[in-house]
Amino acid sequence: MENTEGEGEEKWSFNPNHNIISAAQHTVRSVYQTITANLDGRDQRPTISLAIGDPSAFPCFHTTPVAVDAIISAVRSANYNSYPPPVGILPARRAIAEHLSRDLPYKLSSDDIYITAGCTLAIETVLTVLSRPGANILLPRPGYPYYKSYAAFCGVEVRDYSLNPERSWEIDLDSLMSLADKNTVAMVVINPGNPCGNVFTYEHLAEVAKTAKKLGILVIADEVYRHLTFGTNPFVPMGTFGSLVPILTLGSISKRWVVPGWRLGWIAVTDPRGILKKNKVLDCFESYFTICADPVTFIQGAIPQILGDTGEDFFNETTRKLKQTADICCERIKEINCITCPYKPEGAMSAMVKLDLSLLEDILDDVDFCCKLAKEESVIILPGSAVGLKNWLRVTFATGPSALEDGLERVKSFCQRHAKKH
Amino acid sequence: MENTEGEGEEKWSFNPNHNIISAAQHTVRSVYQTITANLDGRDQRPTISLAIGDPSAFPCFHTTPVAVDAIISAVRSANYNSYPPPVGILPARRAIAEHLSRDLPYKLSSDDIYITAGCTLAIETVLTVLSRPGANILLPRPGYPYYKSYAAFCGVEVRDYSLNPERSWEIDLDSLMSLADKNTVAMVVINPGNPCGNVFTYEHLAEVAKTAKKLGILVIADEVYRHLTFGTNPFVPMGTFGSLVPILTLGSISKRWVVPGWRLGWIAVTDPRGILKKNKVLDCFESYFTICADPVTFIQGAIPQILGDTGEDFFNETTRKLKQTADICCERIKEINCITCPYKPEGAMSAMVKLDLSLLEDILDDVDFCCKLAKEESVIILPGSAVGLKNWLRVTFATGPSALEDGLERVKSFCQRHAKKH
Repeated sequence: MENTEGEGEEKWSFNPNHNIISAAQHTVRSVYQTITANLDGRDQRPTISLAIGDPSAFPCFHTTPVAVDAIISAVRSANYNSYPPPVGILPARRAIAEHLSRDLPYKLSSDDIYITAGCTLAIETVLTVLSRPGANILLPRPGYPYYKSYAAFCGVEVRDYSLNPERSWEIDLDSLMSLADKNTVAMVVINPGNPCGNVFTYEHLAEVAKTAKKLGILVIADEVYRHLTFGTNPFVPMGTFGSLVPILTLGSISKRWVVPGWRLGWIAVTDPRGILKKNKVLDCFESYFTICADPVTFIQGAIPQILGDTGEDFFNETTRKLKQTADICCERIKEINCITCPYKPEGAMSAMVKLDLSLLEDILDDVDFCCKLAKEESVIILPGSAVGLKNWLRVTFATGPSALEDGLERVKSFCQRHAKKH
Repeated sequence: MENTEGEGEEKWSFNPNHNIISAAQHTVRSVYQTITANLDGRDQRPTISLAIGDPSAFPCFHTTPVAVDAIISAVRSANYNSYPPPVGILPARRAIAEHLSRDLPYKLSSDDIYITAGCTLAIETVLTVLSRPGANILLPRPGYPYYKSYAAFCGVEVRDYSLNPERSWEIDLDSLMSLADKNTVAMVVINPGNPCGNVFTYEHLAEVAKTAKKLGILVIADEVYRHLTFGTNPFVPMGTFGSLVPILTLGSISKRWVVPGWRLGWIAVTDPRGILKKNKVLDCFESYFTICADPVTFIQGAIPQILGDTGEDFFNETTRKLKQTADICCERIKEINCITCPYKPEGAMSAMVKLDLSLLEDILDDVDFCCKLAKEESVIILPGSAVGLKNWLRVTFATGPSALEDGLERVKSFCQRHAKKH
C-alpha cells in the first residue's frame, strides 16, 4: 500500500496489521457503532440504549458510597501512586482471595489471585497464555463476543458449543464433547449468563466439571455477573468443582458494584490441586503481567475497603431493581407479536429474544431490524448475530424502568409498522 | 508437557505460550526481580533502590493537590463510572490536544489524541499495529527495555542503533541509516532520554526528522519525560517536525505529575499532513483500542482539571529536586574509582555510568556487580546490560537526596572492598 505525497521523491508506505481490524469487528463496541450510525439526528426523542451491560449510565443504578469513599481515601493517602507489582498489590489480592473463599469449599490464598485492568484484561491474559499453534477453545453460543475477537487476534481457533433455550440455556454437553479434540485447551462457561440471563444449577455445573475432566481441558469460568441473581437458582461458583478440574475464575467489581469504568478485575486460580502451577501456566501469567497493562494502583488500594465494607443492603437493592426491570422487559415483550423470549432471565443484565421474520414484511434479518429500529425509533438493541445467534436480539434490561418501558413501547410501534398485512 | 496426576487415568496436559516468558525477561521489572532476589534479609539497613524511574515512593517527590482533588471531584461526580469509549473520553482528548499544542507549530485536535492505560499501552498499541511478517524497528541502545520485550512478543524484529556517550548521547545517524532497509517501519526516539538523562537539541531532532524522511519511516517519539529538564537544552517536542515526517508522540502524566500508578497515557498523532490516516494506521489504532485494556474513566474525567490547573510552581519544584539529585549523583560517582559518568544528566531521572572491571578483582560483569551490591549493601541498581550496554550501570537519581547519598556511599564501600590490590 503506497502513498505518494506528490512532493518530489517522497513515498510513505505503511502496512499496518490488518488482522486487528478484522478481530475487532466482532466486539459489542464495534457492532454497537454500526447500529448507532443509523440514528436519525432529527428525532427529538432521547436515544434509548438497550444494548450495553452498563447500568451506571442510568440514575436508578449507582454504586455505593462505600466504594467512592474507599477510592477517595486511597488517593488521598498518597500510598498508591507508584507502579503496582505486575500481579497486583498484596492487600488487594488477599482481600479478593478472602472474598471469593466465602463461597468455596476450600480457601484461596493471595497467591491464587492476579489483579487485572478489568475482566477484559483477564480474558486477554488467559487467551494469550493458552495460545499456541493449533490450539482451539470451546465458547458458548450465544456468548460474549470479546472472547471470539481476542481469540481471533491471538490465533486461537474458536469452536462454538450450543446453549439450549428450551432447557434454560443449559450447555448441550453432548455437542460440546463432539467438538473437542486433542488440541482443545479450555472451555469458557459464563454464569450468570451473558447474554441469556440464565443461572446454572449446582447439578449442571457438576456435569460441566465432569465433562471438562473427561476431556482433560481447563474451565474458564466467567463470573463477572457473580451473585447478580434474582430467580430460583442461587449463584454457584464454578470453583466449587476446582478439586475435580482446574478452573480459572474471571471476575471484576464492574457489574456488582456498578462501576465498569473503574477497570478492576481478577483471575482467581481455583485449582486446589495445583495442576496449573505444575504445568507452568501460572509462570506464563506472571510473565504476561510484566508486559501487559496494569490496573491502577490506588483502585487496588481501595479494594479491601470496597469488598470488606459494602453491606448486603446495597447488593439486595441492585438485584431488586434488576428483577424489576427483567420483569418489565419480559412483560412488554409478550405484547409484541414478532418477538418472543423463551426464558425469563434470573440473573445478569440481558435477555435473548427470538425474532419471527415471517411476521415482518421488510426486515431482512436481525441486523437490518436493529439498524432500522435505531433509525426510526432511536432505540439501540444488539443484533443476536453479534453474540452468535442470527435472527435473535440481545436486550439489556439494566436500564431505568421508565427508559425500558419507553424503549420497548417504541419497539412495539416499530414492529406494528413493519408487520405483514394479512 | 504432560503431567499425570496419579489418580487413575487422569492426565492434564497444558502447553502455555512460552514466548511470553522469554519476551518478559527483558523488562526492567524482570531484571529488577533478579537483582532483588540477592538481597540479604539479615541486613538491618533499609534497602535503597536506585533502579526504578518512580520517585513517588520518596516523600520529597509527590504529586500536586490539584491532581488529587481532580480525581476526587471526578469520582464523586458519578459521571465517570461507565465504560469509556475505546479511544478515550472527548474532554480528556481535547485537553491533551490543547496541552501538547502549546509547544507545537500547529494545533492538534481531539481526534489526534488516543488515551491509553499508561504509556506502556501506548507502546503496546504502536508496536502491535506496526507488526507484520518481516517488519523491523530501530531502537536506541541504551534504551527502555520494554520496547524490546513487546517487540519480541508481537514478532517485530529489533535493530539497535547507537547513542554516542561522547556526544551527549546523541543518535549516531550514520549507523542508524546503515541498519534500515525496506522492511524498517519506524524508529524510536526517547527524549528526554531514558536511561541517559540527555536532552536533544532542536538541531539534532531536525536531523533525526530528515533521516526518517529519507528512510520513509515514521518516528515514535517517547516523551514520557517531557519537560523534565534542568540543563541548558530546553525540551523540544519531536512533533515540531511533524510536517516533515509522520510522528507518533507517546506521553503520560506518570512522570511529570509523579503518579505512575495512575496509568494514564496517550498517543498523539503529530502528523499534520495526515499520512498515517491515509495509510490506515489510525483505523488500526481504533480497532486495537476496541480489544485492549482501557484507561479508567474517572481518571480520564480528571484530566482537563489536572492539565489545566497545575501551576508552573509545581513543575519547577520537581525539576529543581531532580537537578539537585542529579548533581549529588554525579558528585558522589566522581569519588568512586571504578565507575565514571561520561555525561551529566540534564533531564529525566537516570544516568548511565561506566564500570571499569579492570579495577575490581572479583566482579565478572555488570550483572554480577549488581547482584553482589544488592547482597552486600542492600542497594539495587539496574545493570547496563538490561538497557543494552554491558558493563555499564543505570543509576536512577529520582530518590530523596539522603537515600541517594546513603546509597552511593554504600556503592563506594562496595567498590573499595572489591578493588584490586596493587
